Amino acid sequence: MTKIRVGVLGATGYAGAELVRILLSHPGVQITTLASKSFSGKPFSQVYPHIKSVLDMELVDLDIEKVVALCDVVFTALPHGASKDVIPLLYARGLKVIDLSGDFRYNDAAVYEKWYGESHHAAHLLDASVYGLPELYREKIKTAQLIGSPGCYTTASILALYPLLAGGYCDKNNIIVDAKSGVSGAGRSASLDYMFCECTENVKAYKIATHRHTSEIEQELSLAAGSEVLISFTPHLIPMKRGIYATCYANLSQNYSTDQLTEIYRNFYNNEYFIRVCDGTPPQSNHVAGSNFVDISVNVDPRLGRAVICCTLDNLIKGAGGQAVQSMNILFGLDEKTGLGTPGLYL
Amino acid sequence: MTKIRVGVLGATGYAGAELVRILLSHPGVQITTLASKSFSGKPFSQVYPHIKSVLDMELVDLDIEKVVALCDVVFTALPHGASKDVIPLLYARGLKVIDLSGDFRYNDAAVYEKWYGESHHAAHLLDASVYGLPELYREKIKTAQLIGSPGCYTTASILALYPLLAGGYCDKNNIIVDAKSGVSGAGRSASLDYMFCECTENVKAYKIATHRHTSEIEQELSLAAGSEVLISFTPHLIPMKRGIYATCYANLSQNYSTDQLTEIYRNFYNNEYFIRVCDGTPPQSNHVAGSNFVDISVNVDPRLGRAVICCTLDNLIKGAGGQAVQSMNILFGLDEKTGLGTPGLYL
Amino acid sequence: MTKIRVGVLGATGYAGAELVRILLSHPGVQITTLASKSFSGKPFSQVYPHIKSVLDMELVDLDIEKVVALCDVVFTALPHGASKDVIPLLYARGLKVIDLSGDFRYNDAAVYEKWYGESHHAAHLLDASVYGLPELYREKIKTAQLIGSPGCYTTASILALYPLLAGGYCDKNNIIVDAKSGVSGAGRSASLDYMFCECTENVKAYKIATHRHTSEIEQELSLAAGSEVLISFTPHLIPMKRGIYATCYANLSQNYSTDQLTEIYRNFYNNEYFIRVCDGTPPQSNHVAGSNFVDISVNVDPRLGRAVICCTLDNLIKGAGGQAVQSMNILFGLDEKTGLGTPGLYL
Amino acid sequence: MTKIRVGVLGATGYAGAELVRILLSHPGVQITTLASKSFSGKPFSQVYPHIKSVLDMELVDLDIEKVVALCDVVFTALPHGASKDVIPLLYARGLKVIDLSGDFRYNDAAVYEKWYGESHHAAHLLDASVYGLPELYREKIKTAQLIGSPGCYTTASILALYPLLAGGYCDKNNIIVDAKSGVSGAGRSASLDYMFCECTENVKAYKIATHRHTSEIEQELSLAAGSEVLISFTPHLIPMKRGIYATCYANLSQNYSTDQLTEIYRNFYNNEYFIRVCDGTPPQSNHVAGSNFVDISVNVDPRLGRAVICCTLDNLIKGAGGQAVQSMNILFGLDEKTGLGTPGLYL
Repeated sequence: MTKIRVGVLGATGYAGAELVRILLSHPGVQITTLASKSFSGKPFSQVYPHIKSVLDMELVDLDIEKVVALCDVVFTALPHGASKDVIPLLYARGLKVIDLSGDFRYNDAAVYEKWYGESHHAAHLLDASVYGLPELYREKIKTAQLIGSPGCYTTASILALYPLLAGGYCDKNNIIVDAKSGVSGAGRSASLDYMFCECTENVKAYKIATHRHTSEIEQELSLAAGSEVLISFTPHLIPMKRGIYATCYANLSQNYSTDQLTEIYRNFYNNEYFIRVCDGTPPQSNHVAGSNFVDISVNVDPRLGRAVICCTLDNLIKGAGGQAVQSMNILFGLDEKTGLGTPGLYL
Repeated sequence: MTKIRVGVLGATGYAGAELVRILLSHPGVQITTLASKSFSGKPFSQVYPHIKSVLDMELVDLDIEKVVALCDVVFTALPHGASKDVIPLLYARGLKVIDLSGDFRYNDAAVYEKWYGESHHAAHLLDASVYGLPELYREKIKTAQLIGSPGCYTTASILALYPLLAGGYCDKNNIIVDAKSGVSGAGRSASLDYMFCECTENVKAYKIATHRHTSEIEQELSLAAGSEVLISFTPHLIPMKRGIYATCYANLSQNYSTDQLTEIYRNFYNNEYFIRVCDGTPPQSNHVAGSNFVDISVNVDPRLGRAVICCTLDNLIKGAGGQAVQSMNILFGLDEKTGLGTPGLYL
Repeated sequence: MTKIRVGVLGATGYAGAELVRILLSHPGVQITTLASKSFSGKPFSQVYPHIKSVLDMELVDLDIEKVVALCDVVFTALPHGASKDVIPLLYARGLKVIDLSGDFRYNDAAVYEKWYGESHHAAHLLDASVYGLPELYREKIKTAQLIGSPGCYTTASILALYPLLAGGYCDKNNIIVDAKSGVSGAGRSASLDYMFCECTENVKAYKIATHRHTSEIEQELSLAAGSEVLISFTPHLIPMKRGIYATCYANLSQNYSTDQLTEIYRNFYNNEYFIRVCDGTPPQSNHVAGSNFVDISVNVDPRLGRAVICCTLDNLIKGAGGQAVQSMNILFGLDEKTGLGTPGLYL
Repeated sequence: MTKIRVGVLGATGYAGAELVRILLSHPGVQITTLASKSFSGKPFSQVYPHIKSVLDMELVDLDIEKVVALCDVVFTALPHGASKDVIPLLYARGLKVIDLSGDFRYNDAAVYEKWYGESHHAAHLLDASVYGLPELYREKIKTAQLIGSPGCYTTASILALYPLLAGGYCDKNNIIVDAKSGVSGAGRSASLDYMFCECTENVKAYKIATHRHTSEIEQELSLAAGSEVLISFTPHLIPMKRGIYATCYANLSQNYSTDQLTEIYRNFYNNEYFIRVCDGTPPQSNHVAGSNFVDISVNVDPRLGRAVICCTLDNLIKGAGGQAVQSMNILFGLDEKTGLGTPGLYL
């Protein structure tokens, strides 16, 4: 089999490095380019010594011509904004691009501009770009040239609530997503907020009612519901490296039991390998850490007619690089699980 | 000044040991009895070597006569159920008792029996017992003989929502408390669930819609509102030792701003030393860990007309021993802050 | 290719479960039997839900006849003592056995009996058993029927010091191994000592001068040196899940520089894929966690003529299941890296 | 009682902030000045919100005249180098100064200059300055004007080994200190090395054979022994906030037993409140965290004639601010324990 020639732009952030690690275990892929603004000229394994002996490739500056020549597909793990500048150039040359930033996940540039507080200079590509959540957009991904691959908070929140809203099982108002994130979601730049001593033995909410991902979750849930859905989204930082945990609340339209609702979720995600619906017991983030799996539980509080849905995934895998590789597999006609089949580490 | 002679029953659980530590720094107190079923006959400092040189007292078996002879007040940090058996005996002898279990926090034995799944053999004392939340029941505590001192989840949830409900600022439906707890809340018994390797790098929800403390929170919030309030309460275990963080959601009855609501909270807790209302920035649990302080923030999501209140406290201090000592101070006419004035450790 | 039929006895301890996880990613292996005394009759994925969807096999009681019929090789991840009872039965039936306990790692039953404080009822198999450290005993492993696969402390300590002693570069006296271990090394039984609240934010030494693995390290280093070597071995528990870090001290016989000694180590481990000798910078345990790699640094203190060798590995992989699979690969003529090639997770 | 008027220069680093926290619980002290280069003009409680309501003082720029007017004693918690510049000015005005940097802990400027790689512009004050380890220099501290208060690694290492060397019980060669430190020892500047994701689940050695504190430990141990003592000192970073753990190795000059050596240590530290000699069981860092205590164990390996001494303390208290306050108490004739009597938090 000819291997897919792959490039990673922004290879030395946490998301980029984890993507590289995943690609190294993928039997159908050959990494041809790793670009990094901060570390070009250095071997990747000098920046990330855990990869030593497995990959000994040098980081390069971004050179569009070379990327076009060397790659069948490019993953961009750049800060948002940077993606908007680079991707139109790659796109214009016919390259397939899977972007891990928020830049190409929106259907409407105005929504992006409102929540990101800046203009979207590549709005013409939003129509062409596909929202890279395979469980919802598999067919569109197959033929996409540009994929906006969703991140950790959005993937967890959307997968947790989609079946309810798509089936009309809950009220569109009073939906709350209370999310807990490990620290790696903040990336690799040195910052007082993410120092060990500031994060260990500590929990805090942040960006209450203002976090950007709110708008992305609302976009997808509104599509599910067929009309506008607004949500409360509250992210929290908790003292662990990996993992996202979204606890979601929705008022049910009828008196479903926990078993009934669990069955509805099982049917909705019936053939989805990476989605595991639990039996009423809330999932744990260490059951999915290190894997591309998403564990979801559904519980009903019969006193209140309210569903509590818990959804957990590994922010660096199903919430970043793993999801992007899953889309790549679809795009290139491979088995969707290729390179992603390993279970989590638990410990 | 004559020192208050104090006994602690159940001194070797985490809550009991922390209470002992707090009492050791209290200038108006003399510890006369430390009872422990599991470790009687051993020095306390053998079970908890961090206390060595500061306290060298032997743990004893519970002997009601001796306790009555040696103590002006007794703290009971026993498992629930054990409290119900012992406290009537102490109460009958006229002793002042501050109980840290759930047994004497209910106004209605039927509610207790429903949520705890067992009968309450000392229901006749529920009328006499006072709910030991000083910020709400200070006057009653002054003359109480029996105090049911509330725990971590309930204290955080009640303090977070009380001003809203007492003032009629929010809808009584759709109230959600999403709480995150450090592991010490589970106590000191060896159990696979609380092993280091099972808890570190992990988050999970548990007892969704069924946690006992739901009923206690509802009791107090209903009193605040003047009519029945039912809530969703979802506890989570997160990888830290100490600390509770309650993120609460309530739909506002009018369009208050974050500033207005913050002002309402400031006024409500105006003279309360231990309650610090933040300026719109969510609090952090490491700002209160090691102290008796409660930090509360109030944020309004104007898009949704919803308030998000975050409340954090140290589960072993304001959520256990510190709160009990605060009540003791009130009960004996001391300055409420005595022995509790130290700030948190932050690190 | 016909797959190797593999059984795991003691599949539900941490070491056993990690071994199962590794075997699941091994392309040449088919798991046919998972035995567990504590959980027989339950699906493995009920005990370890992170494995759900990847493996849905039921745990069984140990039945020697069935094991013989179903397996080409058996891994025993039983508590020591249990191994001594079961393995002779498997061995007598001609089965290949890779044992993860200490029972078959000794050349001399008397040494075992002295350090373990019990008699070795299967001493007749010690001659047949091979010490399963591939980097030192590869040739013997190829034809072994019984392999005593070494654990985390011993593997790290032996690999760190072997080149020095084998080459006569250091004094045989005054060798010190100061080792730091993550908590998973203690296994999965509930015990107060390994509770989250007792381990987090804590470090302690234990079993000073009396830890059993001392004798195993001394056995191998004595073989390296050609005469008896006695060492100080001090294990410490530190607040992390995975990982071993051995800091070793030895007085040099001549004035070697850091570069010279590093070169000596590079030559010694020249063709060893899993051993990475660092450039004077001490390794980090998170560079090897999740992988079968061993990172070693060598530093010389020229003032003292002393070498400080740091060696780190993942206690559950190279220090347990990964090492055992490496031996299995050798035993069955596979590429030694099969199923073990993935780099660590870093995060 | 007139309160001692105290200033803290460099109040917003971790060591400075912890010193402020300790001083706030000290009944004989009034804080009059808190200086900070980075945050002058802001309230201290804005930088460290855990202190809110307890202290509401504004941070100021350093103004020597004001400091002289307002303070009886000044603590300098500045980076080294900064101390050398400021302290001569304060000293010349007759102010008492307790310095937490390394600048005034040396008897010989040449040693400082060799290990710090820079010249010591205030070498004339080294004779006047007293080494602020109360257990060894109590008499000199009583009359000092300038105290160089030792830090965490040095205090732990010196207290662990002093009795052996002072009594001639061990060989002066082959002394090894293998030390493990929590992350707060690295201070509060944002740096990739100390980010949560880089430190959690990780251990590493650093600065092998080159760490500056080696020279300070050697200075004091040489004074103990009466002749030059050189040591191996290997610091490690482990994933916890607070705490130092020094595991020390020394070859005994005679065959002492663990009990005999423990007795020797008990006698040596006979009247020292803050030093607790354990009974052969190694101490745990969580037994001293949050306190000024030092826990020491002594074990003999009779096979090797070697002592293993473990010593643990809280790097921010006995290894920084607590030790400095202990010296201040001595300097001003207070009970040495004043403000320092609280036991550790354990949890």
